[in-house]
Amino acid sequence: MTDPTDTHTHTDTHTDSHTNSHTHTDTGKVLAIASHVVSGFVGNTTTTFVLNLLGLETGSLNTVQFSNHSGYRQLRGFRTSAAQILEIFEGLEQSGLLEGFDMLLTGYVPGEEELRAVGKIAREVKKRGGGFWLLDPVMGDQGKLYVSEGVVPVYKSLIHHADLIVPNQFETELISGVKVTSLATLSTALDTLHRMYLIPHIVITSVTFDGASKMACAGSSITSSGASRKFVVDVPIIDGFFSGTGDLFAALTLARLREHSAAAGLLSTAGWIPPDETATLDLPLAKAVEVVLGSMHLVLKKTKSTRDRILLSQAAEQGEKERHVQVTRASELRLVQSQEELLRPGLRYEATVLP
Amino acid sequence: MTDPTDTHTHTDTHTDSHTNSHTHTDTGKVLAIASHVVSGFVGNTTTTFVLNLLGLETGSLNTVQFSNHSGYRQLRGFRTSAAQILEIFEGLEQSGLLEGFDMLLTGYVPGEEELRAVGKIAREVKKRGGGFWLLDPVMGDQGKLYVSEGVVPVYKSLIHHADLIVPNQFETELISGVKVTSLATLSTALDTLHRMYLIPHIVITSVTFDGASKMACAGSSITSSGASRKFVVDVPIIDGFFSGTGDLFAALTLARLREHSAAAGLLSTAGWIPPDETATLDLPLAKAVEVVLGSMHLVLKKTKSTRDRILLSQAAEQGEKERHVQVTRASELRLVQSQEELLRPGLRYEATVLP
Repeated sequence: MTDPTDTHTHTDTHTDSHTNSHTHTDTGKVLAIASHVVSGFVGNTTTTFVLNLLGLETGSLNTVQFSNHSGYRQLRGFRTSAAQILEIFEGLEQSGLLEGFDMLLTGYVPGEEELRAVGKIAREVKKRGGGFWLLDPVMGDQGKLYVSEGVVPVYKSLIHHADLIVPNQFETELISGVKVTSLATLSTALDTLHRMYLIPHIVITSVTFDGASKMACAGSSITSSGASRKFVVDVPIIDGFFSGTGDLFAALTLARLREHSAAAGLLSTAGWIPPDETATLDLPLAKAVEVVLGSMHLVLKKTKSTRDRILLSQAAEQGEKERHVQVTRASELRLVQSQEELLRPGLRYEATVLP
Repeated sequence: MTDPTDTHTHTDTHTDSHTNSHTHTDTGKVLAIASHVVSGFVGNTTTTFVLNLLGLETGSLNTVQFSNHSGYRQLRGFRTSAAQILEIFEGLEQSGLLEGFDMLLTGYVPGEEELRAVGKIAREVKKRGGGFWLLDPVMGDQGKLYVSEGVVPVYKSLIHHADLIVPNQFETELISGVKVTSLATLSTALDTLHRMYLIPHIVITSVTFDGASKMACAGSSITSSGASRKFVVDVPIIDGFFSGTGDLFAALTLARLREHSAAAGLLSTAGWIPPDETATLDLPLAKAVEVVLGSMHLVLKKTKSTRDRILLSQAAEQGEKERHVQVTRASELRLVQSQEELLRPGLRYEATVLP
């Protein structure tokens, strides 16, 4: 046998400029609490891959294990009970692993008791590490709840512990009480959420107004006196129904916000709140969202063109139910095939000040 | 609001040479059935990240959800029952998602009934797509079983359905009945496994002989007449105990074997068995293992130096148990920080023919 260390020690060739383009050296660690599906990309399946890829080591506590996401209208699997969630938490605690997390991302939690358990864990993690909590108040979309009704008041009781929330239009209305039908009411909703929950950062994702050909994404970071700094970004609508876009948005936003907050020297501060003199369009949150929306657009464009190619190559299933499943399968996010788009989107959407 | 599509359509800048270095365009899809831990990298936590990163879209069916791996000697969480595993399988089946998988990677399954359920799924997936099954017969290490005893005969009944097995030294002895104490007996073990189970490919990972300063990794791909084509690679031993190295090895081997089998035009053949005229050192399996061991070495080197740095910066815990947990925490594989080493190790270890 030859000694391979003599003949092949090319250890230097593996470092190239690529390594410097994201933050692999000062790794942040995220505890992600959300759903798990065996096939496809939603919830933690998306979150862990995207955050790990972007250099944030991510541990996932799965609130369910389902065969596939609910967009198929049929699935099998099981939920993790509140008792099981708390048991895993105790396991992390007894080995000193909770202290390792400096960020939290919470998403889909189907039941009220389970959400209380998740809230307990999040507060404990924050207590130890002063962690940053991105809370995605996953409750429903387009007027429909997809969690049990008891979940809504529990979210309302938890939001003031979080640092960033990323509700969609429907969830914004549920937690703010403001009906969002125009830029003016969108702006009011942001003010109301800051005031009601003292939440440092908000992004309202994917808002559509009647008759508009684009979607709006709006955000705000609070000042020391509790005032809003509001911005909005317009993005083109991509035709089709794609599950898990909210989870992708949340994961990317956490990674990019951390990057821009690090650049602004904010990571050791509570809530990563920029100084009052930071102008709205210079907010780390605004810069983060601009990049995130670039990645989102490119991933969705690739997903849509892949879907169209797949459906063209297949005979259309008969029966409405079979056809729906066929289209849903073809519409799974193309994340693995979009690593460049996630890492270096190139494309940026520009924020403007929202009065 | 400005229209960002007018001002910032840099969509072309996101494709660079990096994209061509692995196989993102012709994505293979893997069903990975193994353990899940919330903190750290073993089982599916490793497998899904590594395979997705290397361009193979991976769905994970988790056989357990534990707070951490068993190397800590304490953990909390729960197992997925055989009934739950089969229920998820039915969910995949009813939405036509099983057909989507063209590879299988099975690892840690703690109980006999659960392993039977996994075997059923693997055979079904193979039946539909002619998929390639990498079976890691996870049973124990260094003379100790860490699954229930009933698992051993179930593995023995399943191996002949698989395409590649990656037992360690102890597991090799369990399934072949050959005690591995020298290169000669290592070679006999490979012959015996091919003959007993008609298994196309074998890699015996991390073999150590008394008094040797290096580890051996040996493999073989069968010929059409059932003969072995055996090779061995020597690798330096890295001091320390690192959990999940077997899982990392399995995931990398699947990805690299597929790459080299694709280059040899074998992906549409059953078992990816190279023609009889392929010389041992030209086997896709031999080439794959050379690259895999390069990545393994670089990841372990980085993990070890990170561990040493962490332990130096911390006061040593008193109590044996606390100290063990502290060292184990510091020894978690540094996968997220080793993306370049996983993608482009540069370092290669050279195989030689094993007589």
